[in-house]
Amino acid sequence: MLDRRTEILMAATRVIARRGVRGLRVGELATEAAVSTALIYYHFTDRAGLLRETLAFISDRADRYTAERDPGAHPGGPRAELEQVLMLELQDTADVRENSTAWGELRATAVFEPGLREDLAKVTHTWVYEIADLLARARPDGTAPAHAAAAERLTALVEGLSTRWLSGSLPLDHARQLVRGAIDTELGGSGAVG
Amino acid sequence: MLDRRTEILMAATRVIARRGVRGLRVGELATEAAVSTALIYYHFTDRAGLLRETLAFISDRADRYTAERDPGAHPGGPRAELEQVLMLELQDTADVRENSTAWGELRATAVFEPGLREDLAKVTHTWVYEIADLLARARPDGTAPAHAAAAERLTALVEGLSTRWLSGSLPLDHARQLVRGAIDTELGGSGAVG
Repeated sequence: MLDRRTEILMAATRVIARRGVRGLRVGELATEAAVSTALIYYHFTDRAGLLRETLAFISDRADRYTAERDPGAHPGGPRAELEQVLMLELQDTADVRENSTAWGELRATAVFEPGLREDLAKVTHTWVYEIADLLARARPDGTAPAHAAAAERLTALVEGLSTRWLSGSLPLDHARQLVRGAIDTELGGSGAVG
Repeated sequence: MLDRRTEILMAATRVIARRGVRGLRVGELATEAAVSTALIYYHFTDRAGLLRETLAFISDRADRYTAERDPGAHPGGPRAELEQVLMLELQDTADVRENSTAWGELRATAVFEPGLREDLAKVTHTWVYEIADLLARARPDGTAPAHAAAAERLTALVEGLSTRWLSGSLPLDHARQLVRGAIDTELGGSGAVG
């Protein structure tokens, strides 16, 4: 059984994915999570604390999509593992759509709410580091700064494509194909158009 | 002298960049633009019409940052022109910060407001087409589908990096350096890390 704290965070993610961070009111969240507003304040102190913990929850949940994977032991090798990890935010399931929508919304909200920025930068850094590590395993001949830059580009590309997908500018299959092309371009022996 | 319609659109961009689309109320916009709410409704019919016209205005204004450029006659050739056009949203000036913030906010809002999606997809398509054309001039030996895919990746990357910059996850100079690296990788003879 889930604890109350987790139930509140799941409900907050649902509400953010449905109506946006700015549509999130603590009173409505209490109704959605079937708890009292007092319990929400008890666990998260204030709205800013709730948003920060929801960000951490969303980030952990994205990791869990591939919780079954055994790092370094992917049957397709590090290239396939890299593709799998990058595609986490680009899948047509209710869970992933909800998670990606909430993630994008928290990212967009941080432009206007400085209180979210530090945690968001940390979570982004962790993601970039994970991808740089996979790039290093896929191409051990590359340099660490080159792996880091490629990881920053690939993760920012996934964020950009995810928002295009969710805002109706790009079909999901095409977004996934563009990410595969980007992996090839970053790892590969020749440029995409040259 | 600017006409009233343009003054309203400039004021709408300022308000969106300051407080977000969801902080935009027609009454406050009227105060900001020093016009009556009736005039706003006269020009834009409703809030949805105002948002669509603001999107078009922001998109046109981004083009004007390099209005002085003579397409196809850039002194640095198509590679330099490509870099210049892609960097439009990544500059540390009040105008660009305002425009990029408002653009990112309209993109994020379209996830929740389907009425914005069609116009946003059109503006995105125009941007991708312009970049694909520059890629084709920079590397005439590439294929049209390869140029189109590279243009979609480069523009989505700029959107992703712009939002990271504005949300405090990435310094601007570093974002610009990553875009330069992406141009090299898309055009170049070798992958970034291989």
